[in-house]
Amino acid sequence: MSSGKVIVYGGKGALGSAILDFFKKNGYTVLNIDLSANDQADSNILVDGNKNWVEQEQSILEQAASSLQGSQVDGVFCVAGGWAGGSASSKDFVKNADLMIKQSVWSSAIAAKLATTHLKPGGLLQLTGAAAAVGPTPGMIGYGMAKAAVHHLATSLAEKDSGLPENSSVLTILPVTLDTEMNRKWMPKADHSSWTPLSFISESLLKWTTESSSRPTSGALLKITTANGESTITPQ
Amino acid sequence: MSSGKVIVYGGKGALGSAILDFFKKNGYTVLNIDLSANDQADSNILVDGNKNWVEQEQSILEQAASSLQGSQVDGVFCVAGGWAGGSASSKDFVKNADLMIKQSVWSSAIAAKLATTHLKPGGLLQLTGAAAAVGPTPGMIGYGMAKAAVHHLATSLAEKDSGLPENSSVLTILPVTLDTEMNRKWMPKADHSSWTPLSFISESLLKWTTESSSRPTSGALLKITTANGESTITPQ
Repeated sequence: MSSGKVIVYGGKGALGSAILDFFKKNGYTVLNIDLSANDQADSNILVDGNKNWVEQEQSILEQAASSLQGSQVDGVFCVAGGWAGGSASSKDFVKNADLMIKQSVWSSAIAAKLATTHLKPGGLLQLTGAAAAVGPTPGMIGYGMAKAAVHHLATSLAEKDSGLPENSSVLTILPVTLDTEMNRKWMPKADHSSWTPLSFISESLLKWTTESSSRPTSGALLKITTANGESTITPQ
Repeated sequence: MSSGKVIVYGGKGALGSAILDFFKKNGYTVLNIDLSANDQADSNILVDGNKNWVEQEQSILEQAASSLQGSQVDGVFCVAGGWAGGSASSKDFVKNADLMIKQSVWSSAIAAKLATTHLKPGGLLQLTGAAAAVGPTPGMIGYGMAKAAVHHLATSLAEKDSGLPENSSVLTILPVTLDTEMNRKWMPKADHSSWTPLSFISESLLKWTTESSSRPTSGALLKITTANGESTITPQ
């Protein structure tokens, strides 16, 4: 069947692993980029967290070029990221802001750069924002700043002459709470029926990858909410 | 007269020097924070550009505490920043994005942190955004991402429990083109009557510092345009 190929940036995390497994199951070749390897991936590009942004970019671009050998991919999905709170008076405000920018902005920008080089015309670049960061985030300022930068990246990439290939789309998912093992562990008593199943994200990505007519408008920030087990996508 | 005190972050640059001189002339004690000293300042805190964000923060906070000796300031003005272009396919995309985040986001966040510690209740924190970054910036994505993060920081700081002192304001100026020597050198044939004089910014800051009733709503992003030598402030 399909001989499609996708890159998952953050493919060892909870959401990334789910996406990777789902695309594998649907016949795709999957390249994982993460701090550690995912054995299910066809190939792995390891990120050295001690390197700076430009060094990480160079290393990832070199490994991707060597792994892809001139072939192009149908999708580049960036689900790397993290969370840390804190207002501006928090002792760790700058430390956490730094971590958030490294986890979300560095990965998203490198994913965008990969897409300019390896994404097929008409392909899909997916980034990960945050519903909360569409408005002010006084209690988690570093996180909000990093995600606001990702949102800006996404809307800019959707414009003419952004560097993305012709007819490609950039879609940014803004999850509220994902139904992951870790979240269940830390919030055992929460209403899990309001959490978004990872399968909903994977299925949406596959649909957008295979049927470009099913995609929301390029540049859209897509809030993903779930109620009573039903997930809904709402462009912001 | 006034025994006011302000901090200018970036007080050795063109705009920062103009603000520093103007506040000095109006009787203020001025603390400059920059890569190099401004001899007109009452004291200087030097930033080591080779240090990382957390190290810069620690060094600046220590020097500010030692310089201020428990006294509080009326204003913290952050006019540090820079500009670099490039779409996502530009060779220097990540390198320039990194520089933009260091120049604009690092300085703005440290200025915010200083304000949480040293700004008087009712004082003024001023940040510097960019009119262009209110919308997509495909041709200068790194710059736009960094300024979008600053805009998010500003709107978050204006909210309750952001960490800023009681009744203080955070105002973000969004200049289009400033009338600086450097801009005149590089764009000698441009219409200089559409450039904003540095004195307009300095005078606005002094007014907002001394008359809190003259301030726009805290959190506002203030686009500053100039036509035929007349400058106008338009909240975005």
